[in-house]
Amino acid sequence: MSSGSAGLAGVVAGETAVSTVGKSGAGLTYRGYPIEDLAAHATYEECACLLIHGDLPDAAGLEDYRRTLRARRGLSAALRRVLEAMPAASHPMDVLRTACSFAGAETEAAAAGNAGGAGAGAAAYEPAAIRGQADSLLALLPGALLYQHAFAARGERREVSGGAPSLAAWILDLLHGTGAASADQVAALDAALILYAEHEFNASTFAARVVASTLSDFHSAMTAGIAALRGPLHGGANEAAMALIERFRDPGEAERALLEMLGRRELVMGFGHRVYRESDPRSPVVQRWAERLATSGEQQRQFAVAERIEAVMRREKGLFPNLDFYSALLFHNCGIPTPLFTPLFVISRVAGWAAHYLEQRDNNRLIRPTAAYTGPPPRHLPARASAPGARPSARPGA
Amino acid sequence: MSSGSAGLAGVVAGETAVSTVGKSGAGLTYRGYPIEDLAAHATYEECACLLIHGDLPDAAGLEDYRRTLRARRGLSAALRRVLEAMPAASHPMDVLRTACSFAGAETEAAAAGNAGGAGAGAAAYEPAAIRGQADSLLALLPGALLYQHAFAARGERREVSGGAPSLAAWILDLLHGTGAASADQVAALDAALILYAEHEFNASTFAARVVASTLSDFHSAMTAGIAALRGPLHGGANEAAMALIERFRDPGEAERALLEMLGRRELVMGFGHRVYRESDPRSPVVQRWAERLATSGEQQRQFAVAERIEAVMRREKGLFPNLDFYSALLFHNCGIPTPLFTPLFVISRVAGWAAHYLEQRDNNRLIRPTAAYTGPPPRHLPARASAPGARPSARPGA
Repeated sequence: MSSGSAGLAGVVAGETAVSTVGKSGAGLTYRGYPIEDLAAHATYEECACLLIHGDLPDAAGLEDYRRTLRARRGLSAALRRVLEAMPAASHPMDVLRTACSFAGAETEAAAAGNAGGAGAGAAAYEPAAIRGQADSLLALLPGALLYQHAFAARGERREVSGGAPSLAAWILDLLHGTGAASADQVAALDAALILYAEHEFNASTFAARVVASTLSDFHSAMTAGIAALRGPLHGGANEAAMALIERFRDPGEAERALLEMLGRRELVMGFGHRVYRESDPRSPVVQRWAERLATSGEQQRQFAVAERIEAVMRREKGLFPNLDFYSALLFHNCGIPTPLFTPLFVISRVAGWAAHYLEQRDNNRLIRPTAAYTGPPPRHLPARASAPGARPSARPGA
Repeated sequence: MSSGSAGLAGVVAGETAVSTVGKSGAGLTYRGYPIEDLAAHATYEECACLLIHGDLPDAAGLEDYRRTLRARRGLSAALRRVLEAMPAASHPMDVLRTACSFAGAETEAAAAGNAGGAGAGAAAYEPAAIRGQADSLLALLPGALLYQHAFAARGERREVSGGAPSLAAWILDLLHGTGAASADQVAALDAALILYAEHEFNASTFAARVVASTLSDFHSAMTAGIAALRGPLHGGANEAAMALIERFRDPGEAERALLEMLGRRELVMGFGHRVYRESDPRSPVVQRWAERLATSGEQQRQFAVAERIEAVMRREKGLFPNLDFYSALLFHNCGIPTPLFTPLFVISRVAGWAAHYLEQRDNNRLIRPTAAYTGPPPRHLPARASAPGARPSARPGA
């Protein structure tokens, strides 16, 4: 029995060919491609194809892949009923988690029907079928999220099939009306989706791999990923960063308030990282986009506030901004409501989770660690617990 | 960076005071109480109270606790609509996973409403509130499972509130009609629920703890637990064991067929264990119950087949039966349809998962391991990927 550190920090829990995080000299790469190159020269769909299908598509392949994803948008009548049954005040992550779980029930029921019996599809592992399920889920989730969003707000049953070929453009069209977003906003959201797509054995991906390791179905693993990403230590940081930035009227006020927060040892979200020690390579990309999108005086003021928060955190705590900090402003300057920041992270990350699901199944060993016991020593039941009235009936041999 | 073994086998991933598994001299205990004593002298509700609330109740406390659970049975109108929207051929684990996720949305929406804002309830951790949510989920899931079961089969909208005070009796009443099950069947199912309630850092509990470690909400963690238990390497073994036993007319046929299976290196479910090396302390308890419930000639023949399978596995492979093997016959002899075996495991295990959720939150560190990278070295994007048509628009600095 080997002793792990708290939270498995630094413990190698398996092998991956999907990405490198914090390896010296390598930076962050998706299947070998540096994320700086992908964010500058590729699109989210190319990265999703790289992660889910293993290779970057050529120009014709990208067009095909976008056509495939676009054709799979839209929601079944049953899923729409589920989304309409959700409380109007539902947390958007609960909407995504439930939609993913329900879509899994539909997928498995259809597969069992094709295989001629309930559950027959569960054990058979066909990578091509999983890749198809990943594409479908990626196509489905934005519509499910924004269908429920509109229905809860206005009782509107909106159309969420078809739409722009690019995921980033489609999301902004659904939020703001077709063509209302600027080309820069589309490109910025596309870059953010690229940077959120994959990050090795982070908590949500690891949860998805633990589920995959029991040979459970694809949607079960994705549902677990969403469940983990819902936690504020993982997925909520960009929303918390936005709330922080919005509290201050100018950089001076931000600096004074932040120093008080640090004095009270309050946690400031969006800084530091479990794996990265010196910087997060994704941060400069979203920072540049956040700055470029800041065209109004209000947006420029918020960007200046954010830069001051960064400077204070570096000076006082030696901490650097991670992906979530400037992403908050990037999303905000795309007109995205703050409660949708983490759900967009989920949608992007489906590509990475799918790559890890496939990798886990391709070379599986059940993930089942052990624990150090710190509880009471063996003890006898108190007499009261064996009172005859407590038992539903006698036991054999009792 | 320390190197973990494949599947984290033998790696200590944290501390627990909830149970011991395979520690020499201790056997399996829940908070110090040997499971043999609990299965013989306590009821499932006492064990659930021990796990969720920390202590065994006295006789009056048990009555109170059963009253509390009973009062929380029943389904919201919205949850009934979701269950009715599920495909008739839905896998019962998909029903439970979706019902749990939806109940979580309802719980969090209500909490956010009480706290005066969406999401406000997510970060605040109140152990008493979590214990209440655990009790409610435990009370809700059997009704959700059997409501959908009856609706899919017969379009019946059955009443699933109220009912017998004991969970085991209530489940059998819902399946067979009030009072139709024998006292022995109720006691046997109660014992099986006790033995399935908790098992340290198994894959589903570990998945729930990974989710809890992001400070995600209770229902997210439970949903991840269900997702992991859905996999045949974890939760499906009792169903596979039943299918195996049912294939043979007599012990001789079972022995011949099993030797052929072993010759083909087929996996036989219900034997061996990741942690236990010599025996599973839960197996003799369910074996005795399975034998006692075998009153018809057909049931006695199946029990003889099961004993022969056990003997062959011991002789040929040196493997012992785990909890799942004879549990299959116990459930079967209670008249429970095979596809509901794993869902009953889920319902029982909610108590253990809840105990681990609380323990993880009480002393949290984000569970985030790392991976050994085995993928391609850093490489340049192919020229085609930077073709202008591929990009939604120019990038800053590009």
